[in-house]
Amino acid sequence: MNFASDNWSGASAAVMQALARTNGGFVPAYGADALTAAVRRRFCDIFETELDIWFTGSGTAANALSMAAAARPGGLILCSADAHVWHDEMGASEFFSGGMKLIPLASVHGRIAPEALAEALERFAPGSRTGIPTVLTLTQASELGTVYRPDQIAALAAPAAASGLVVHMDGARFANAVAASGATPAELSWRAGVDIMSFGGTKNGCWAADAIVVFAPEKFGDIAALRQRAGHNASKARFVAAQFEAYLADGNWLATAAHANAMAQRLAPGITGSGTARLAWEAEANEVFAVLPDAAGERLRAAGASFYPWPTDGIDLQPTEELVRLVTSFATEPVEVDRFLALLGEA
Amino acid sequence: MNFASDNWSGASAAVMQALARTNGGFVPAYGADALTAAVRRRFCDIFETELDIWFTGSGTAANALSMAAAARPGGLILCSADAHVWHDEMGASEFFSGGMKLIPLASVHGRIAPEALAEALERFAPGSRTGIPTVLTLTQASELGTVYRPDQIAALAAPAAASGLVVHMDGARFANAVAASGATPAELSWRAGVDIMSFGGTKNGCWAADAIVVFAPEKFGDIAALRQRAGHNASKARFVAAQFEAYLADGNWLATAAHANAMAQRLAPGITGSGTARLAWEAEANEVFAVLPDAAGERLRAAGASFYPWPTDGIDLQPTEELVRLVTSFATEPVEVDRFLALLGEA
Amino acid sequence: MNFASDNWSGASAAVMQALARTNGGFVPAYGADALTAAVRRRFCDIFETELDIWFTGSGTAANALSMAAAARPGGLILCSADAHVWHDEMGASEFFSGGMKLIPLASVHGRIAPEALAEALERFAPGSRTGIPTVLTLTQASELGTVYRPDQIAALAAPAAASGLVVHMDGARFANAVAASGATPAELSWRAGVDIMSFGGTKNGCWAADAIVVFAPEKFGDIAALRQRAGHNASKARFVAAQFEAYLADGNWLATAAHANAMAQRLAPGITGSGTARLAWEAEANEVFAVLPDAAGERLRAAGASFYPWPTDGIDLQPTEELVRLVTSFATEPVEVDRFLALLGEA
Amino acid sequence: MNFASDNWSGASAAVMQALARTNGGFVPAYGADALTAAVRRRFCDIFETELDIWFTGSGTAANALSMAAAARPGGLILCSADAHVWHDEMGASEFFSGGMKLIPLASVHGRIAPEALAEALERFAPGSRTGIPTVLTLTQASELGTVYRPDQIAALAAPAAASGLVVHMDGARFANAVAASGATPAELSWRAGVDIMSFGGTKNGCWAADAIVVFAPEKFGDIAALRQRAGHNASKARFVAAQFEAYLADGNWLATAAHANAMAQRLAPGITGSGTARLAWEAEANEVFAVLPDAAGERLRAAGASFYPWPTDGIDLQPTEELVRLVTSFATEPVEVDRFLALLGEA
Repeated sequence: MNFASDNWSGASAAVMQALARTNGGFVPAYGADALTAAVRRRFCDIFETELDIWFTGSGTAANALSMAAAARPGGLILCSADAHVWHDEMGASEFFSGGMKLIPLASVHGRIAPEALAEALERFAPGSRTGIPTVLTLTQASELGTVYRPDQIAALAAPAAASGLVVHMDGARFANAVAASGATPAELSWRAGVDIMSFGGTKNGCWAADAIVVFAPEKFGDIAALRQRAGHNASKARFVAAQFEAYLADGNWLATAAHANAMAQRLAPGITGSGTARLAWEAEANEVFAVLPDAAGERLRAAGASFYPWPTDGIDLQPTEELVRLVTSFATEPVEVDRFLALLGEA
Repeated sequence: MNFASDNWSGASAAVMQALARTNGGFVPAYGADALTAAVRRRFCDIFETELDIWFTGSGTAANALSMAAAARPGGLILCSADAHVWHDEMGASEFFSGGMKLIPLASVHGRIAPEALAEALERFAPGSRTGIPTVLTLTQASELGTVYRPDQIAALAAPAAASGLVVHMDGARFANAVAASGATPAELSWRAGVDIMSFGGTKNGCWAADAIVVFAPEKFGDIAALRQRAGHNASKARFVAAQFEAYLADGNWLATAAHANAMAQRLAPGITGSGTARLAWEAEANEVFAVLPDAAGERLRAAGASFYPWPTDGIDLQPTEELVRLVTSFATEPVEVDRFLALLGEA
Repeated sequence: MNFASDNWSGASAAVMQALARTNGGFVPAYGADALTAAVRRRFCDIFETELDIWFTGSGTAANALSMAAAARPGGLILCSADAHVWHDEMGASEFFSGGMKLIPLASVHGRIAPEALAEALERFAPGSRTGIPTVLTLTQASELGTVYRPDQIAALAAPAAASGLVVHMDGARFANAVAASGATPAELSWRAGVDIMSFGGTKNGCWAADAIVVFAPEKFGDIAALRQRAGHNASKARFVAAQFEAYLADGNWLATAAHANAMAQRLAPGITGSGTARLAWEAEANEVFAVLPDAAGERLRAAGASFYPWPTDGIDLQPTEELVRLVTSFATEPVEVDRFLALLGEA
Repeated sequence: MNFASDNWSGASAAVMQALARTNGGFVPAYGADALTAAVRRRFCDIFETELDIWFTGSGTAANALSMAAAARPGGLILCSADAHVWHDEMGASEFFSGGMKLIPLASVHGRIAPEALAEALERFAPGSRTGIPTVLTLTQASELGTVYRPDQIAALAAPAAASGLVVHMDGARFANAVAASGATPAELSWRAGVDIMSFGGTKNGCWAADAIVVFAPEKFGDIAALRQRAGHNASKARFVAAQFEAYLADGNWLATAAHANAMAQRLAPGITGSGTARLAWEAEANEVFAVLPDAAGERLRAAGASFYPWPTDGIDLQPTEELVRLVTSFATEPVEVDRFLALLGEA
């Protein structure tokens, strides 16, 4: 009953086989190989546009190097108050960008509120000595398990672009968002105004496959140099390429994401129907946020369930309740979900 | 006939099997897993001391984060004039260290000359406005295919330590140095005065397995934070651990290195005996530097041999000669060496 | 009627005379002169302790270099939500510290609320991936014209120190705080737990005289190197020393500050008694925050009064009112205050 | 007999008077004042072109912020092996530029050798993993007291520009170069290919007046933000403006420089004619490099002469000789020169 994080799972069978397949022989290092080129082509097909792609060693690196590529002195990065870049990356974006300041904006269940963005663009208008708004970053699917629709992205990206910002998407769970929304990758990214994206495969069936996808290269600095200087240009890049090749082939990436989402959809109504627990808000992708009575939390953990408590900013809880995050992945099995729900219902 | 670089090879069979073995189930992320702990223990055994170990996504990252962990404002990093950190890392050490300056020191075939170190320590004595000597970094085996003996390391490390510097070893090819020298890992590192090391598995049979090994943690800053901030804390760290586990088990790492070295030792006398080509200096590990007549170089490349030209600072060449680097690896086959030599002898 | 900022004034007569006095002859550069040494001694006397002192070219530099001297990777700087370091320095602290993140804490009229500090220390407890609390910075007098009493400083400094943070004071208006509070410089700084201070003379009668005063040097890195690397080690440092010498002689600094405070105390009751305008909160030093009817603001500006509007976070205003800041200085003349109040009373 | 450095002198009478003149009243801070605008106009007149000007707190800051304004990840700064930016600024350019690497080029008595530049541009051609040549910086007058003629500047600037570099001039002693060469400020800067300059007044009669002068603003990032973030935007900027106003009025700056140069020209033949000492190379501006017998050095120092020994890279000395630098300034008096020479002649 593992719901701690989607990065506690291993790799999918398809990815494993691709790694074995690519292992033999001698191949040019640092991405100058045919497989890396083929993967770029595949990304172009999937996103229906020409684009640049840069593998990185982690999602944090993809995010922070994207910020660095857009950096300017005194720059501000506007993000959700729930953003991974703010909460979970030990200041990576600040460091790589030479000290840009992150400005957390109010969100509605993980999605930045348009009025919060408007207020920030006005507050930091030209002449501000706080800094110069430079990047807007959105997380898709969001850290709170919700998904931006294309029009919701555009409603943020358009005013940001009008104020001269570039738009970044943290797509650590982009596959889950595509699978959940029914929109195409293009509709959820550049067509809605996204200029650059951190595209994550690691949480959804790869071992270590993250990349920066650049839709508007003219807006960014020299990512090749930034990445090499950061030690994120893997010498044996073919092994990253092999993961992406298998991940993106035959719709694998959407199949594993759809499975993860389905497991969340199996979990959510069970929580609602449990009588004691409840959903904190609607689960749209592969993360379920639930309010548990303390007794249920203890019982589940004692039975071996893994999951993390979550900060409760803005959530009304009883003194005997806790807010928890339950993450499903490509490897989550229905029987584990059912066992979790059965234990929950034993109140 | 691939002699371009040892990172053009894939992974060894032992490493591949370990990766498959570790793939199943759910495991805590970010290095909080049992396999990572076991690998640390293994490193302690191999180096015969307690130590800290931090996986990174590349050798460049291991080097640059080591520098960052030792950094001080205005600090100077003393390195060989042939050093990878100077020539090949796009300023990674400068960037991660907040702008420390690298001071290239004269080397004798890749090994820093003790008198060059002494001169630098005097030139940048306290009061210098150039900067404050902070790190001495040695590469083992060196970029020019030579190996420091323990006493040669100590002859550099001791005066450096006496002047307050920490001593770093770039051990991207440390296995080759151990296999070639007959000295133990401890003798080639902390017993000779090394405080911190970049330990590389990638060039010698892993896919992507590099680590910072810290012998004197009290001399360094918070590497955990530095690494996380750099995006070099892999979420699915068990896959790095699995590579190191297999790499270090049963002497595998020394066996693959010994093979690579043996291939170089097969190559070197063939070059000397070729009649036209010659060795630029003695090959001690898995890199052979040879002076080729232009005609031979052309013939070999036309026949499919891969290798890089090398800068000729301080080497006397005829106008019709070039200096080249030939790198062997765990995957180099004797037949390929022999084929290369046969082609060379056809002059 | 200039109430825009205390840095719109020139220099006091005492400072001007000292500059002329120090001008002749040849004197060692970069602070190795006798006058600089004498100024350090004077600081020790005034603060009743041994201390280190480093002149800088601005208050922003003093703040940011203090942060840099305390910096660690992933570090967090806890500051007031009204702090100059957050609002007005274009990310200087982030830049100089290698990307530390500023965490704005709720304040009560400019003074950090102890419960906000406690909450932050708990939220960013060890294990946080947001970062590591490293510096607490207080502004004295605060940006909102209030003054911390010694016990109020200690109530923040003690829990911060207990959590391993260093305590910084932005003393751009420290003289005003000393003059207003009746407490000694020592009581308002190191005796209350302050480890390092930005001590400003510029706003209170100098031309450009700011300094870092270090009470606990063992807690900080190499400020000499940080400052030189930042270009803040003036070559003709004697001219900074001369300013401080005159500033601190014969209680001059407290006399000019007391005058500025008295001008604010002349202004404040006049506003309260004006019938239409009101104080936003009590003025304790040399800054008065007032709520003006729009008509009064227009009338005053038309008559030549200079002052800035101020953000109204948390202040209830009528639609026809604005919040403004009125700053007095050593150069403010009573007649100008009276003229301002007369215009205000004409409603 | 002070020949230690031109920054051991005070300020000229004209500068002092201007400071007193500008002191009264209230004036907008941070450079938004009329005098600062007038100084910019004056610079345009002197350089016969439109330009941007940014005051900084030191020459080091002007240099390092210029580098920052041109910075790119992995960038290289090509400088003379004698450059102040390399030897004397504690890594300021590396720090402010986010870690660019300085590449010292061979010089001929302080002037970069064109063939050394050509070699570097070839060595770091596109594809280099050392870095990307980004800035060429020249010092005028050079650190070794020589002066670039316009054609010598152009011979370096043209190939640099052709390779995509920007050209920076460290003009800490630009006045001395203009006075010595007879060329115009324009001929010695933008007309010869200089894009940005650190213009120093401090060594030549100001107290603290340095500035970045930008001839080609389209090639640089946001200097306003860089400077504010660095704490180099003085709040009472009118006092810097006043210094420049007086400095540049009525040819004052060239008169003080011509005096300093004349003192060097008085010193040089005396050294040559002393019988024992000799010039290391020809003195063209206000710095004289002399080889002294140890006995003479001792005698001079005992008599109160101040001067610094200089590193002897490439200079052949007898064991009983030393190389010293003798700097003259606007404040050097002929009688002191004569006294120095008399003492020297007493051998």
